[in-house]
Amino acid sequence: MKEIGLGLLGFGNIGSGVVRLLEENGDIIEKRLGAKLILKRIADVDIERKRSVAVDPSLLTTDARLVLNDPEIAIVIELIGGYEPAKSFLLAAMKNGKHLVTANKALLATQGNELFREAERLGVNLSYEASVGGTIPIIRSLKEALSANRFLSIMGIMNGTANYILTKMTDGGVDFAAALKEAQDLGFAEADPTYDVEGIDAAHKLAIVLTLAYGQRVALDEFYREGITGISKEDIDYARALGYRIKLLAIARQGRGAIEARIHPTMIPEGSLLANVNSNFNAFHLEGDASGSVFLYGQGSGMMPTASAVVGDVIDTARDLLKGVSCRVPARACPEKMIDAIILAPMDDLSTNYYFRFSVIDRPGVLSKISGILGENNISIASVIQKGRREGGGVPVVMTTHRANESDVRKALSAIDRLEIVREKTVLIRMEDPNL
Amino acid sequence: MKEIGLGLLGFGNIGSGVVRLLEENGDIIEKRLGAKLILKRIADVDIERKRSVAVDPSLLTTDARLVLNDPEIAIVIELIGGYEPAKSFLLAAMKNGKHLVTANKALLATQGNELFREAERLGVNLSYEASVGGTIPIIRSLKEALSANRFLSIMGIMNGTANYILTKMTDGGVDFAAALKEAQDLGFAEADPTYDVEGIDAAHKLAIVLTLAYGQRVALDEFYREGITGISKEDIDYARALGYRIKLLAIARQGRGAIEARIHPTMIPEGSLLANVNSNFNAFHLEGDASGSVFLYGQGSGMMPTASAVVGDVIDTARDLLKGVSCRVPARACPEKMIDAIILAPMDDLSTNYYFRFSVIDRPGVLSKISGILGENNISIASVIQKGRREGGGVPVVMTTHRANESDVRKALSAIDRLEIVREKTVLIRMEDPNL
Repeated sequence: MKEIGLGLLGFGNIGSGVVRLLEENGDIIEKRLGAKLILKRIADVDIERKRSVAVDPSLLTTDARLVLNDPEIAIVIELIGGYEPAKSFLLAAMKNGKHLVTANKALLATQGNELFREAERLGVNLSYEASVGGTIPIIRSLKEALSANRFLSIMGIMNGTANYILTKMTDGGVDFAAALKEAQDLGFAEADPTYDVEGIDAAHKLAIVLTLAYGQRVALDEFYREGITGISKEDIDYARALGYRIKLLAIARQGRGAIEARIHPTMIPEGSLLANVNSNFNAFHLEGDASGSVFLYGQGSGMMPTASAVVGDVIDTARDLLKGVSCRVPARACPEKMIDAIILAPMDDLSTNYYFRFSVIDRPGVLSKISGILGENNISIASVIQKGRREGGGVPVVMTTHRANESDVRKALSAIDRLEIVREKTVLIRMEDPNL
Repeated sequence: MKEIGLGLLGFGNIGSGVVRLLEENGDIIEKRLGAKLILKRIADVDIERKRSVAVDPSLLTTDARLVLNDPEIAIVIELIGGYEPAKSFLLAAMKNGKHLVTANKALLATQGNELFREAERLGVNLSYEASVGGTIPIIRSLKEALSANRFLSIMGIMNGTANYILTKMTDGGVDFAAALKEAQDLGFAEADPTYDVEGIDAAHKLAIVLTLAYGQRVALDEFYREGITGISKEDIDYARALGYRIKLLAIARQGRGAIEARIHPTMIPEGSLLANVNSNFNAFHLEGDASGSVFLYGQGSGMMPTASAVVGDVIDTARDLLKGVSCRVPARACPEKMIDAIILAPMDDLSTNYYFRFSVIDRPGVLSKISGILGENNISIASVIQKGRREGGGVPVVMTTHRANESDVRKALSAIDRLEIVREKTVLIRMEDPNL
């Protein structure tokens, strides 16, 4: 039986999962592939630390070159993460004709153009299913299964940590700080959670999805990004009362002549499938012009779910190797020379429904003043909730709107927040109806 | 730019969708593929009837041989359906070295062994994503994205018509006959609905899924199949009251040394994702040993969603052609020589929770008699609902059980149904907790 040599760069949590999966499911992988995958070498800066999986110590090295230059290694799995030395290692491996599998979303989202171009030029595969949505086959679906479609929209819960925190705030009745603490205790959130709660990780993933659906990479700072640190228990509770859930959604949508791309906390109807994605799960709701709604759900992170995606890519590449081909499916859905530039729609042009929570002094005429300013800015009110006064502070007035324009909304809120009757900065949460 | 010739067999609803999709999205398909797909010929018994899409009349023929023998046609799309002449056409096309794309689940489920073996022997692709779950990438996920996993279980809503009827009965408060009528009026159900409501269509799909997940084809009559014609509004309402929904599930599960395969109406918790698959949508809940839960959802039928899957397969095959390879991914997940036989677990060995609705005479001691027989058969009761008496007929007593054994249950019910206090055959519905 044929053998295909693998080299692993990075023996952390996911790397250990890959080693374990190759070992535990080696028999079934061999059956499906008709060949053996042999892990030849593992490189990591620390080869002393004990891992959750046992390996033959002779496989371990601190010298990545022993992976990059080994002629018996056909596929290099990069699980170091971050920008350097991961990028240099990937480029070196390509030059040596090795096919690549990576989960490195940050690197691909920011420097993917260079890496993908180089891989195509050198005729090697660069696979990255694990980089977005963990175990969920979102990359393959965009590149292959749904490749006959124009993508009308893609909405995703792309960060498990933020979703865990929002789920806890919704179901556990705790505030952001307590939910974050719980996520940290469970290992779902880092000591510094910025990357997850500010939507940076989701932005990396959205950038990758945008390229697959619409074309050339866009810089991360070109699209709107807002995290969940401003979400209070109060807004979670009002959302519930209105029949909604708040989720951190990454949204890409085909507009007229331009692509909408944005990440922000979003109120979605409680009956929609996305609203029922709980805990640290990820999910994607795609609308294809032919397929209609497609919904994909699974673990977006974690040792074994991510390893499942990584080894899936390895099997895929091995199948190419057994047939003597490469770059069969373009790494970015289109061959390099066919990739379009993406024209992003300005955030100011967004048209959607909005939720506002005003904090006002309880005085006659307040509601009329606020609704007057909204009206002047073409914003029409769909519902209002006004409850009893609070000790000391302002009284909350909650409104939802019909479809309104983002720049009109900003203008109106800036005028409202300057009113003397307004006690705190108005909270704004965008609403979407995935209609699913 | 390279051109790849396509031939279409069957110009019905799905065929028209394929023609329309190739035309409407030809530009984007060309970009992704880096080549042109050219529809060379369409064969159908009726080329006079008006279709929803306009085609150049010179493409149309009633002679399938003009497709099967045209050297300019590299990929043949079979959308005739049924057994003959579809099977003969597929075999003839293979012999001419043509790659095949089909949506023909009935044929693949019953005669797939022969067709797949022959395709592998002749070195041509035989793709069939559209045959199960319509637009949902379930076949690709089992064969590729999740190929590093052992599949612990696969539960699916695989028939849109049955799901539409059950949704109507649940949300619309109508009985089976009225819901069926509505489905027929909307074109979701055939005049003779047997195929859908008796679970035969779902059985074809389950047979295909079983092969992909576990091995060699099993005959359809080897696994348990029960349709939805016995589901009454009363049971739907009791399910609701208990916090459940009734869905027609096709279930495959890896047991100890044997595979469970069965299709039957199933009570699942209302909060689970599968319970929230409504109308005519399909969905699959997979459990991989590494991936954990993966949930895939979309349109299981319909002109354009099915065309999306068909053309996705065509693009996939075209990518192989452009690289000069075929059979890169085995049509049945494993190469022919590696495929295992499937050993099915007898239905009698099933262990699950049950819902019973007894119809009894309202008389002291009835409950004790029934629960006595259940106890003697190792069936332990989890909950009981007994409501007021009905005019004339028996009184309904509803019970759910803890985990019990199917053969014990059958024994107990057969004893209970012989009791003189029992007025009608007891209704049995199996329960599952997809835990998702």
